[in-house]
Amino acid sequence: MSGLVPEGVEFGPDGLVPVIIQDHKTGEVLMFAAMNREALEKTLAGPHVTFWSRSRKKLWTKGEESGHTQTVKEVRLDCDGDALLIKVDQKVAACHEGYRSCFYRKIEGGKPKVIAEKVFEPREVYKK
Amino acid sequence: MSGLVPEGVEFGPDGLVPVIIQDHKTGEVLMFAAMNREALEKTLAGPHVTFWSRSRKKLWTKGEESGHTQTVKEVRLDCDGDALLIKVDQKVAACHEGYRSCFYRKIEGGKPKVIAEKVFEPREVYKK
Repeated sequence: MSGLVPEGVEFGPDGLVPVIIQDHKTGEVLMFAAMNREALEKTLAGPHVTFWSRSRKKLWTKGEESGHTQTVKEVRLDCDGDALLIKVDQKVAACHEGYRSCFYRKIEGGKPKVIAEKVFEPREVYKK
Repeated sequence: MSGLVPEGVEFGPDGLVPVIIQDHKTGEVLMFAAMNREALEKTLAGPHVTFWSRSRKKLWTKGEESGHTQTVKEVRLDCDGDALLIKVDQKVAACHEGYRSCFYRKIEGGKPKVIAEKVFEPREVYKK
């Protein structure tokens, strides 16, 4: 599980690279998070996406609590090497608030407006 | 052009919020950049996307040099309010290296591999 991260991936001063998660089938952008080198190594080794959780300061394999895992389909690097786009097979939903995508609000007339339906009830999934 | 940025948009300690740009027709993720409050105000006022350029330390309306503008179709906010997704009508291409999307390389076997074709020649577009 070493040597999978190519040269040219630019981790920031905090050791992190921003990551966009996209549904490989529908193209829907599901969430935005960050990885350190170890999280990217684990993700490239597969099968599931692992992030670095800034709030909990530890590796976080998406779905480890909810079961809503992300299976890696493709990992893309941008021109400057400082952002990743990962296409995934998303189980159930990406957002901890119950929506398929974290981007469930549209800004219109100076206000954020919810434009999606919940696909699960967070209280039933996150029991802690 | 004031009051278009809703409460709940969380700008970081550097005054910036990360922004994902997506083709509103195809769903292709085109680029990743950042906005300060003023850039977001300008973008919400429309018609074109304006970023904050970290390298040049100034507002940067995409396409001001190349003509490859991004017309705003929809602005989405994520659950934590600290990332934006903007759906656009992209003229020609988003990447300054000549590709439609900045994410033109796939990581495979520990190496980035170009998987897209150039749609314009940078030397002919950026004459400086």
